[in-house]
Amino acid sequence: MVADSGFDETDRRWMAEALQLAARGSTTTQPNPRVGCLLVKAGHVVGRGFHARAGEPHAEVMALREAGARAVGATAYVTLEPCAHVGRTPACAPQLVTAGVVRVVSAQTDPDPRVAGAGHAILQAAGVAVDVGLLADEARWLNRGFLSRIERGRPWVTAKIAQSLDGRTALANGESRWITGPEARRDVQFLRARHGAILTGVDTVLTDDARLNVRLSAEELGIEGPVRQPVRVVLDSGLRLPPFAPIFDAPGDIWLYTRDAQQGIHPEGLAARGAALIEAPYDAVGLDLDFVLADLAARGINEVMVEAGPKLTGALIDRGRVDELVVYQAPILLGHEAQPALALRTLTQLDQAPRWHIRESQMVGMDLRMTLVPAVPESTQ
Amino acid sequence: MVADSGFDETDRRWMAEALQLAARGSTTTQPNPRVGCLLVKAGHVVGRGFHARAGEPHAEVMALREAGARAVGATAYVTLEPCAHVGRTPACAPQLVTAGVVRVVSAQTDPDPRVAGAGHAILQAAGVAVDVGLLADEARWLNRGFLSRIERGRPWVTAKIAQSLDGRTALANGESRWITGPEARRDVQFLRARHGAILTGVDTVLTDDARLNVRLSAEELGIEGPVRQPVRVVLDSGLRLPPFAPIFDAPGDIWLYTRDAQQGIHPEGLAARGAALIEAPYDAVGLDLDFVLADLAARGINEVMVEAGPKLTGALIDRGRVDELVVYQAPILLGHEAQPALALRTLTQLDQAPRWHIRESQMVGMDLRMTLVPAVPESTQ
Ligand SMILES: [Zn+2]
Ligand SMILES: [Zn+2]
Repeated sequence: MVADSGFDETDRRWMAEALQLAARGSTTTQPNPRVGCLLVKAGHVVGRGFHARAGEPHAEVMALREAGARAVGATAYVTLEPCAHVGRTPACAPQLVTAGVVRVVSAQTDPDPRVAGAGHAILQAAGVAVDVGLLADEARWLNRGFLSRIERGRPWVTAKIAQSLDGRTALANGESRWITGPEARRDVQFLRARHGAILTGVDTVLTDDARLNVRLSAEELGIEGPVRQPVRVVLDSGLRLPPFAPIFDAPGDIWLYTRDAQQGIHPEGLAARGAALIEAPYDAVGLDLDFVLADLAARGINEVMVEAGPKLTGALIDRGRVDELVVYQAPILLGHEAQPALALRTLTQLDQAPRWHIRESQMVGMDLRMTLVPAVPESTQ
Repeated sequence: MVADSGFDETDRRWMAEALQLAARGSTTTQPNPRVGCLLVKAGHVVGRGFHARAGEPHAEVMALREAGARAVGATAYVTLEPCAHVGRTPACAPQLVTAGVVRVVSAQTDPDPRVAGAGHAILQAAGVAVDVGLLADEARWLNRGFLSRIERGRPWVTAKIAQSLDGRTALANGESRWITGPEARRDVQFLRARHGAILTGVDTVLTDDARLNVRLSAEELGIEGPVRQPVRVVLDSGLRLPPFAPIFDAPGDIWLYTRDAQQGIHPEGLAARGAALIEAPYDAVGLDLDFVLADLAARGINEVMVEAGPKLTGALIDRGRVDELVVYQAPILLGHEAQPALALRTLTQLDQAPRWHIRESQMVGMDLRMTLVPAVPESTQ
């Protein structure tokens, strides 16, 4: 195995193409990782594959099928270590060996304990050259949800905020519709589609009549087969959600985290509507958010998108549980009496303020979208 | 004269170059407009000029000097109509005729009543071909300050805001230093240098010990000769500014707008420190802002940059007097109890909210800078 710096520009180009293939599964592979595979022989691509859905072939298998006998002597560019375990499909590492692949360039080791280097080891034991770590940062970013679930035991948490230029989401009197434009609202649909679950509080569902589902077609999402709906996760300690709220009219599962699944206002009605009622411990402020996140990970959720009010989103930020902030900023001013997008703890010193890094910013229609991740403290860079 | 659509790509390229020349005077021409001139003959540039400072040669004269006899038969690309009036320097239109220029491509007519088409008329009367309107939008944007002063009788008003991601400038306890990074603070220096005046309130000067001067060298600004310091304009109805405030230690004029130049706390001391005391009418909320703006225009200020607290900046926005908003957004969250960047009037309906158009956004160090102008209502587009 060689370090990233040992790869040449050709390797880099093919791996970038494999990452693009992998990204085609962005809205559908959940809970599996997004994986792409490119088979290259004598400078020509002889096979392409990506993993589309759990239970369907892995990327390597799709690429080998396309290549057929041309796989003999080929190099495989894979965005994640080929699997070593027989799951719903046969393991990929031995299949690459059997097909005659002579070199595997892999972006990263799979942290899944059933793989964790075993895939690379199978290949090397069979005499296949294995180079690991090419475009590892890009590959990790693509699978940040899967990696978070496996490595940290909690999903990657993306908080979405749609706010005015002065950080407000609604007027003092509560009027809040149409702050961002239609392009931004459509962009949110793509963001939702990428996530395994949408997390919100019952008050947001009650106030906004939110449905929180994906309303794009497979064609609009650029996928084949059905649209995967994210699980709608509602924190509802007292089971106040009315069983006939509009959220039930939209497709997709609904999981309600509550203090006591037997008590509260609507336990039977909600269960009858198909909602899963999940009990969570209660701390001084509300449902234990770390419990909820760990439980979501245990249920196979890689990425959670928070579309909630200022308190829930703020509480997650204050606890350091937001991994990515997507801010849609509308070029409008609502004034200092309007409602803030976030309720955060009171700071007494500026150096206590959470610092972020603007990873990307771009116009979406008339609005500006910023994607931020927590800033790495200088001392650890 | 032909419409913009009648110009070809070559014309467009030369005019773009003339605009770049004009921009070299951005920090120094005040109160004059920024003007560039390119003389082109047989596809080659034979003369370049831009106006640097009031009293120094106009762009056309500089270009003619460089061209010498090669000006005969040349085309002149000018970003503003050549002048027709003899001012501190002889008029340019007749000089272009004398030099033998055969065609003048002009981005726009000069609205100055002493020119206002007379320059173009002189050229045409002498048989010079005149085409007006090429890259007019760009040329107007470059001289938006000069045009505002001449056409509207008030300076172009740019409000600068340095805020957190949640629209705050300081913690609840007032701590406010270092929200934006060093690159953004340096960028503000370039912004100041472009403006004829910096407008603020006395409380900002008192609280922040603000000096509001340009601390860049001529070399850093990319100019020859001295750095022009913007006039520091302080609204101080009660003349509370202490005569030994740090603002007096920095170079540049200070104009204090006040209710009564004889009364207040420090009239003699301030006058002794060289501040000009200017009386302004007082309305229900404070000094009459429209009077101040009109007076600044009458004193030759093309562009005013507002670096003030939330009330003054907010009052100018509420009155529709801010033409450009430059927001430096630091990727930091200060929380809902922190101090808002703007104090605006209370809105009861979203459609009352001032809408803006994001003209440009770009990273400046770790911060994001957005430049916004008021959105043109759809009905008038
Ligand atoms: Zn596999
Ligand atoms: Zn002139």
